[in-house]
Amino acid sequence: MLKLVKVFPTPPLINHDEFLVIAGPCAVQNYEQTLKLAQILMAHGVRYLRGGAYKARTSPYSFQGLHEHGLAMLSAVKSATGIKIVTEITDVRDIDKFHDVDIIQIGARNMQNFPLLEAVAHTNKPILLKRDFGATVEEWLFAAEYLMDFGNEKIILCERGIRTFSDASRTTLDLAAIGAVRKITKLPVIIDPSHSGGDYELVPELARAAAAYPAAGLMIEVAIDPEHALSDKEETLRADKFVSLLDEIDAILAIVKKKRI
Amino acid sequence: MLKLVKVFPTPPLINHDEFLVIAGPCAVQNYEQTLKLAQILMAHGVRYLRGGAYKARTSPYSFQGLHEHGLAMLSAVKSATGIKIVTEITDVRDIDKFHDVDIIQIGARNMQNFPLLEAVAHTNKPILLKRDFGATVEEWLFAAEYLMDFGNEKIILCERGIRTFSDASRTTLDLAAIGAVRKITKLPVIIDPSHSGGDYELVPELARAAAAYPAAGLMIEVAIDPEHALSDKEETLRADKFVSLLDEIDAILAIVKKKRI
Amino acid sequence: MLKLVKVFPTPPLINHDEFLVIAGPCAVQNYEQTLKLAQILMAHGVRYLRGGAYKARTSPYSFQGLHEHGLAMLSAVKSATGIKIVTEITDVRDIDKFHDVDIIQIGARNMQNFPLLEAVAHTNKPILLKRDFGATVEEWLFAAEYLMDFGNEKIILCERGIRTFSDASRTTLDLAAIGAVRKITKLPVIIDPSHSGGDYELVPELARAAAAYPAAGLMIEVAIDPEHALSDKEETLRADKFVSLLDEIDAILAIVKKKRI
Amino acid sequence: MLKLVKVFPTPPLINHDEFLVIAGPCAVQNYEQTLKLAQILMAHGVRYLRGGAYKARTSPYSFQGLHEHGLAMLSAVKSATGIKIVTEITDVRDIDKFHDVDIIQIGARNMQNFPLLEAVAHTNKPILLKRDFGATVEEWLFAAEYLMDFGNEKIILCERGIRTFSDASRTTLDLAAIGAVRKITKLPVIIDPSHSGGDYELVPELARAAAAYPAAGLMIEVAIDPEHALSDKEETLRADKFVSLLDEIDAILAIVKKKRI
Repeated sequence: MLKLVKVFPTPPLINHDEFLVIAGPCAVQNYEQTLKLAQILMAHGVRYLRGGAYKARTSPYSFQGLHEHGLAMLSAVKSATGIKIVTEITDVRDIDKFHDVDIIQIGARNMQNFPLLEAVAHTNKPILLKRDFGATVEEWLFAAEYLMDFGNEKIILCERGIRTFSDASRTTLDLAAIGAVRKITKLPVIIDPSHSGGDYELVPELARAAAAYPAAGLMIEVAIDPEHALSDKEETLRADKFVSLLDEIDAILAIVKKKRI
Repeated sequence: MLKLVKVFPTPPLINHDEFLVIAGPCAVQNYEQTLKLAQILMAHGVRYLRGGAYKARTSPYSFQGLHEHGLAMLSAVKSATGIKIVTEITDVRDIDKFHDVDIIQIGARNMQNFPLLEAVAHTNKPILLKRDFGATVEEWLFAAEYLMDFGNEKIILCERGIRTFSDASRTTLDLAAIGAVRKITKLPVIIDPSHSGGDYELVPELARAAAAYPAAGLMIEVAIDPEHALSDKEETLRADKFVSLLDEIDAILAIVKKKRI
Repeated sequence: MLKLVKVFPTPPLINHDEFLVIAGPCAVQNYEQTLKLAQILMAHGVRYLRGGAYKARTSPYSFQGLHEHGLAMLSAVKSATGIKIVTEITDVRDIDKFHDVDIIQIGARNMQNFPLLEAVAHTNKPILLKRDFGATVEEWLFAAEYLMDFGNEKIILCERGIRTFSDASRTTLDLAAIGAVRKITKLPVIIDPSHSGGDYELVPELARAAAAYPAAGLMIEVAIDPEHALSDKEETLRADKFVSLLDEIDAILAIVKKKRI
Repeated sequence: MLKLVKVFPTPPLINHDEFLVIAGPCAVQNYEQTLKLAQILMAHGVRYLRGGAYKARTSPYSFQGLHEHGLAMLSAVKSATGIKIVTEITDVRDIDKFHDVDIIQIGARNMQNFPLLEAVAHTNKPILLKRDFGATVEEWLFAAEYLMDFGNEKIILCERGIRTFSDASRTTLDLAAIGAVRKITKLPVIIDPSHSGGDYELVPELARAAAAYPAAGLMIEVAIDPEHALSDKEETLRADKFVSLLDEIDAILAIVKKKRI
């Protein structure tokens, strides 16, 4: 039975009148580009930079990230700009390398990697817990229950699409999961329109929908130069398009009585 | 191969800067209530009343609608208020009874009932074609191709959720289908948040998301008195909640540069 | 609530120690070929010939069947060989043309076409009710409940695969549905490995699995000359392969204590 | 692109005329019971005992296994009977504890836990790679590609059901995945009817179907005393029922020209 997620956290990491935006490239590849992007984000009030250093890729022949070098690049960008860092851990043995990370992401494929959940929980850092694309809402909340049982309540849930038969997009964004979670717990749910849609043209559409629903926030793949990305180029939004989208998001948030953080 | 849906219609029934709202009860049960609801809708600029006379129900023991009596009730409300009527046909042999209907709905279960498609197409009336909850976008567009091949281009597509493993809601609203359809055809796609979610608490959330995406419109189950509905009471919005929702929808539409029709 | 399917039928159309095999082409195209196939079937103890006269096709440009001419061809083959005829009805207005048909098939797309269910039930003929590929077992049994409520208990359920995300085959054969149905009703469930798999190489594999489970029977697409079929050629088994498969089926049935009928 | 799985292994761990049976309890709880079961298995030609020591459970409050104590119990049973041991690893840091294990299982939830895949591959032991219930066949084969890229070809794939909307069983066994895999690689696919069905009544049915398809083998949950199991009691077969099932399996294997190993 779900217990802890039903009564905690007090308060949640994102208040009910707040909307968190996290943005950045699929993988960090280049210091200058990442720095430039971080400056643009900060200039537009986006205080969290996502960027992969360790990438969990379907194929062993795909770019797997820059590893420690990528983490160092993110730390340098953080020092230079003050932006906070969100990045994914894929190996429990790497946990000590994440000391400078502000929110540790547990990817969809690791949602039920319980030793990893335990290690991340014990850092006492905020955790971004993605829903596995084959998991029910209940299983997802049980993964959060593990984190709480390991002593960490600083949880942000992230819906990124589920596996269905539909030919409309790579996965099907399960927006109603936000409402289903809300009936059980105060844990915030943010939306990842990039991995869900798998197509940068869908990203603004799904992002606006998430803001209007409303979700508790968004995590979006954005890059200065998506054409040169070594991963996810087809779903990464250009920085200028992202800035336009932020204006639409802000206008929608005013209607649903939330403010962007 | 899809042919006609790729080049037609010119123009579509709903222009790209328009947003059609259709509202009303699952089934028409009572003249006074339906009249009162129609008056509220018209007062708020909603010009299309939906209401079932012939209901396709999973169980033979569920309320199946008032049939001809229901159609007559809808006609009377139309005469009294000027509101236009949207209602579903379930039997090809009933086609002549639908002369006073403004938009004939083909329900999800009949999306590939080809004789019914042919009969409805030949009326030359606008058609609301719901996506079967087990159908791909391609199959749905092929059903529209049938309608066009039978000579009728006045098609509105309606996404109402697909069957998935998710425990978040009754079906999973496939919002990205709007974008997928838009890449192939100008046919408008409206969203039914009521049947998709199966829960009136989800309706405003999914409706706002659809407006922000944006869809080409909404079809929502609304009643004066949902508690006394003989069908779908758990997903029907009260009229006063619906009126509040319209204000939010209008504000969102201003952001995505659409006007409600 | 399900009522009639829980207590009826007594006895079912296929007894628990019987295994019904129905075989034949997707669509009847040619008298000589159909006759020749029927003779082969009869020679191997297969007493039911399937063959489409009215085809429900996803695309309006696909071969739609020979209609009355196809029914006449089936009747002629029946007269010449004594084989029984199984064919699908797609339009309620055609019901009187099916007087010579032995088992009337309701296709997956029409599982919840309730006027069609009523008309077919009233013929008092045996009915083959396919499961819609987007329907739950409960919804399928409710469709059977409609047939019983309309006065016809002569029902054979047919599982033909469901829509899933899997890339293994066209639809995913839900074999466990046999067991799930068996817990609720005595209605027999047969398996269609042809439409489920969508690939003639999968047909013997899925057919053997269905026999060993065991199902109550099989409906298989078989033709003398699949290469010249105007529909479903990729999933139709050659007659000689089918005859070999029958031997394997018979051997498996001996193990699960069933005999082929 | 898939490369290695297309050309290797030579020969596969299970030859095309062999059928591997692995059986045992969900979790090892008790030495005497496990020993007794192993003796029964060996007496019936089943040479592989499965038994969980580290259990990946959806809820943190469910029994998580006996850990090192469980591994020691399995080793003791192996010493006493000569049976080979199959057990799951859930934490990459435990890899050195698995030296006495004959086949290391990678569970469905860890199919894309790439650090774990690497560590297990480097042991050079045979690997049982379960398909994640949300993964396509292609993703599953890419996980095998990782193992081969890490230098280990001793792979057995295990299909255990996928997530679908069906209400027939806990997950839907994707039998056709066997055929889909066979078109690409010689890697053997065995079936787990226990986790797929989630119901011990379905286990013999699905197991017979898998043998007749035919799969390359079965992994079945069996216990002396399922009523006292701390996990999966509802899907665990009693040893006596399992022995009867083996007779049916052997008879079916004779038909498809395989012999049990």
